[in-house]
Amino acid sequence: MEKVNLKTKILKKEIIKIFKKFGLNNNHALISANAIINAELVGAYGHGLSRLKMYCDRISKKLINPKPKIKIKKISSSISHINADDSIGFVAADIAIKQAIKNAKKTGIGLVAVKNSGHYGLSGYYAEQAVKKNLITMIYTNAPPAVAPHGALKSLFGTNPICFGTPTGSKIPFILDTSISMINRGNIRLAERNNKKIPKGVALDKFGKPTTNAKKALQGVQLPIAGFRGSGLAWMVDILSGVLTGGNHAGKVKDPFDDFSGPQNIGHLFITFKTNLFVKNYNTRIIDNIKKIKKLPKIKGVKEIMYPGQNKYKRFKMNSKKEIKVTHITKKDLETLKR
Amino acid sequence: MEKVNLKTKILKKEIIKIFKKFGLNNNHALISANAIINAELVGAYGHGLSRLKMYCDRISKKLINPKPKIKIKKISSSISHINADDSIGFVAADIAIKQAIKNAKKTGIGLVAVKNSGHYGLSGYYAEQAVKKNLITMIYTNAPPAVAPHGALKSLFGTNPICFGTPTGSKIPFILDTSISMINRGNIRLAERNNKKIPKGVALDKFGKPTTNAKKALQGVQLPIAGFRGSGLAWMVDILSGVLTGGNHAGKVKDPFDDFSGPQNIGHLFITFKTNLFVKNYNTRIIDNIKKIKKLPKIKGVKEIMYPGQNKYKRFKMNSKKEIKVTHITKKDLETLKR
Repeated sequence: MEKVNLKTKILKKEIIKIFKKFGLNNNHALISANAIINAELVGAYGHGLSRLKMYCDRISKKLINPKPKIKIKKISSSISHINADDSIGFVAADIAIKQAIKNAKKTGIGLVAVKNSGHYGLSGYYAEQAVKKNLITMIYTNAPPAVAPHGALKSLFGTNPICFGTPTGSKIPFILDTSISMINRGNIRLAERNNKKIPKGVALDKFGKPTTNAKKALQGVQLPIAGFRGSGLAWMVDILSGVLTGGNHAGKVKDPFDDFSGPQNIGHLFITFKTNLFVKNYNTRIIDNIKKIKKLPKIKGVKEIMYPGQNKYKRFKMNSKKEIKVTHITKKDLETLKR
Repeated sequence: MEKVNLKTKILKKEIIKIFKKFGLNNNHALISANAIINAELVGAYGHGLSRLKMYCDRISKKLINPKPKIKIKKISSSISHINADDSIGFVAADIAIKQAIKNAKKTGIGLVAVKNSGHYGLSGYYAEQAVKKNLITMIYTNAPPAVAPHGALKSLFGTNPICFGTPTGSKIPFILDTSISMINRGNIRLAERNNKKIPKGVALDKFGKPTTNAKKALQGVQLPIAGFRGSGLAWMVDILSGVLTGGNHAGKVKDPFDDFSGPQNIGHLFITFKTNLFVKNYNTRIIDNIKKIKKLPKIKGVKEIMYPGQNKYKRFKMNSKKEIKVTHITKKDLETLKR
């Protein structure tokens, strides 16, 4: 697919302009644009500009509230509950992680639940904020049905990421941000379009049989990582981010691209705590931990044992120096939305 | 392997007697015996009587302290740090989960870290205690090297379980207690003894090549679930339970069976919180969640979609009615240790 180069600064201004045109205030437009640009720069294109039109469509259809009255309820000095009032997910998550940081700085630990939110992009993006403030963080969010529970012939769990971040004593944070599905649905769609096979063990056909045929997989279900164990992890995330918070759960989170029957009401959970609660020398300890693991003998062809987040950081640094490449479809979206 | 039937009550008395003979006080012997019997009843034999001799050996060699001075340091009303003074892991974990329950009942959330502990059996056993008190819980512990980090040719991470428990509004709790290794080392040993192959994709030989040969796998390394993602989860658990708590980490936790060069100094982390922090009707919501998932169409041959913990509960109930079957080796251990 041919792509067009766009300057990051100009692109960011355009996104802000578009969001403002759709009713977001200055600050909310900036928060949303920053998150989208970040996704592009780390190479997570599925969370970047490819979603811009979807957000605007949902605002137009009054499914995302451009002027939300977001309420932060104090449960204790450590615990807060946020009703995001159907805001764009970026804004809800930004407020939530900042509150979780504040709570942890005050009491050692923060627990912040969010309801009535929407797709917020990458969990790791919010984890980075907490890690920059020298906190450890764990973040959970649910998502529209994509993965079948173990034994089921229908998708219900989202890709429900598990996210964990910690300072490392270096510039590059340890950010694990892992979905629990074997394969991205977008990749199956791509394989179908190009008439290619998908890997073994990532999807079942509509009869529940393993398939490497992309078309059959699209009619069937995607599988969680590690069978019953991955299914259990996805279920855990649905409970933590949905059942606990007051958000939708059990498959009720709507697909933002093709379900316009109501707001998504996604739930998120943010846990933060100080690194020095139990040891004085956390930085020394984590540096030592990473050093020991990196020194292990390597499998042939492996140059370096990477910790989660390292590759993403490298991509970010590299891409930040360049212009952002966008598809013609995205370019067209930008032009249409600006008008 | 032929087995001998033993009455649970009598067996428990014998274990208590043995632990007391080795210097544990009444209460610590009872806590330890209960945990071991529970492992037998849920069918987790690797955490049951097969370890009894090992615990006693380590007490004899002064690597487990039978009379520990366990210190509970209050960091805040929510947060506690426990120095287990090289106690048997069961006792440290029992004190820790009780403290975590107390903290959560008082403030809504509990965070309890433990250092200088040892192998404590099943995380799920402690999760059940919190769930019985109507709390959600997350528990992490590290363990001796068993799994190679992604890209490495040497084991470093333990089987590092991720444990999550929640009340379900029914008698049977939701307890996810999942190791991050593809296969149990004991199962590889068993396959080697019986000249059987191991499944594909669970281990590498000493050159880093995938193998189904059990002998070659034992000379090589076990793999984490889901490649880089499982490796990241194992790393997360090592950081949360080791780096953060003051316990050993980065492969320094000693194998209790064959490394007598010092105490294990395992670390654990217990997180607990109330179910009703953000919603008043958590029980109704979780009942609804489980019901919806159970109602999904099933893969051919699947009778019921089970949530984590359901099977274990059934095994426990069934086995509780019967006598415990022990191997002749275990029977001999019991007799030797009693003397």
